[in-house]
Amino acid sequence: MDNLQVGRHISGQFNEDLERVINNVMHMGGLVEKQLTDALTAVHDFDEVLAQEVLNNDYQINAYEVSIDDECTRIIAKRQPAAGDLRLIMAIVKTIADLERIGDEAEKIAKVALESFSSQQQDLLVNLENLGRSVVEFLHLTLDAFTRMDLDAAVKIHQMDDKINREYEALMRQLMTYMMEDPRAIPQVMTVIWSARALERIGDRCQNMCEYIIYFVKGKVVRHTTAEAVKKLTS
Amino acid sequence: MDNLQVGRHISGQFNEDLERVINNVMHMGGLVEKQLTDALTAVHDFDEVLAQEVLNNDYQINAYEVSIDDECTRIIAKRQPAAGDLRLIMAIVKTIADLERIGDEAEKIAKVALESFSSQQQDLLVNLENLGRSVVEFLHLTLDAFTRMDLDAAVKIHQMDDKINREYEALMRQLMTYMMEDPRAIPQVMTVIWSARALERIGDRCQNMCEYIIYFVKGKVVRHTTAEAVKKLTS
Repeated sequence: MDNLQVGRHISGQFNEDLERVINNVMHMGGLVEKQLTDALTAVHDFDEVLAQEVLNNDYQINAYEVSIDDECTRIIAKRQPAAGDLRLIMAIVKTIADLERIGDEAEKIAKVALESFSSQQQDLLVNLENLGRSVVEFLHLTLDAFTRMDLDAAVKIHQMDDKINREYEALMRQLMTYMMEDPRAIPQVMTVIWSARALERIGDRCQNMCEYIIYFVKGKVVRHTTAEAVKKLTS
Repeated sequence: MDNLQVGRHISGQFNEDLERVINNVMHMGGLVEKQLTDALTAVHDFDEVLAQEVLNNDYQINAYEVSIDDECTRIIAKRQPAAGDLRLIMAIVKTIADLERIGDEAEKIAKVALESFSSQQQDLLVNLENLGRSVVEFLHLTLDAFTRMDLDAAVKIHQMDDKINREYEALMRQLMTYMMEDPRAIPQVMTVIWSARALERIGDRCQNMCEYIIYFVKGKVVRHTTAEAVKKLTS
């Protein structure tokens, strides 16, 4: 039903300003997605060079956040947007905050590739792969929904967070068992636990971003409502 | 030097609107502080009734976030504020997002009081007390600096996060040792670890809030700069 181009929402005068901002958000999103994928690949391959690259690139995400934030404030001051347009700008301001934090989590994950694991302990990291794949998919779909300001998609993928939480819980139980069976491996297992936690957090942030899309299109804050209430928005 | 009343910053027309919003932020802040203190007390005393109260009250914080956010958007649309005033509103929008997440962390901590620990395992929770006290103090000082939009205070307490991170790291090492010495206690120790992590996150969020104060007063984003650069702002 609702498959709106961002362009259709915005009113004459500040079209160009807004388009530039949205373009920047997409670039930022693409970079964040690449950082996350690279971090997971670095962990998978124990690729220290790639991990270091992720750490080195984080400043670019930070720079995007600062400059987009600044641009948004300037647009508001200069263009005095009406309700709908203003809602889009507020949604962007919040989205980039979450994107920046996802960048930080990717950095944390990349650091795991720089630690030393025995070959037996390396097997532990395999456990992160499924969860990692799910989270990368969630982020990808979220950014895609953002690009099109697609309400239906946002409502649908909003629920992916539940799946990610379940995968996370299962992984956590497994890792706790490892620790109890081999207490000497606790420091290494904890490293994997922190990465799993980082992935789970990224899921939360993707869910936030879906909520901003819903807020923009519907003008409704769904942040503290039930999953059922969110689903009803497209029915 | 800079010890500014929020009132002095705001220009004629929408004084009243802004004052009402700021008042609401203070109420929200007070409630968040109470939730955190109650959560820590509930854990300390194993007080299930108080813990349940914390869980029941979280919706109030959420409601504050939604209504303040809404008010801010309406003020921007209606009053079309100039740069300084707009910066204050943007700082408020970000502050309440962090306050709301601190409320969520307090909720997580309160849940610990509802779990079962053996009397020996209860000793573990004592470890949280120092960190808890530091974080409560950080939050209190941050809200205080916010009330007065006090740049000097914000710059000074911004650094408290380092102290909290050090306390957190020390606690984490101690808890890892516990686990290695008594693997059967791992599930309980993990519960304490999650609470410690929640406290550490609250410290991060207090630091964010200090950055919004600095952003408002100085018009500078210090989020991704060094501690030295932040310190220089008051010298």
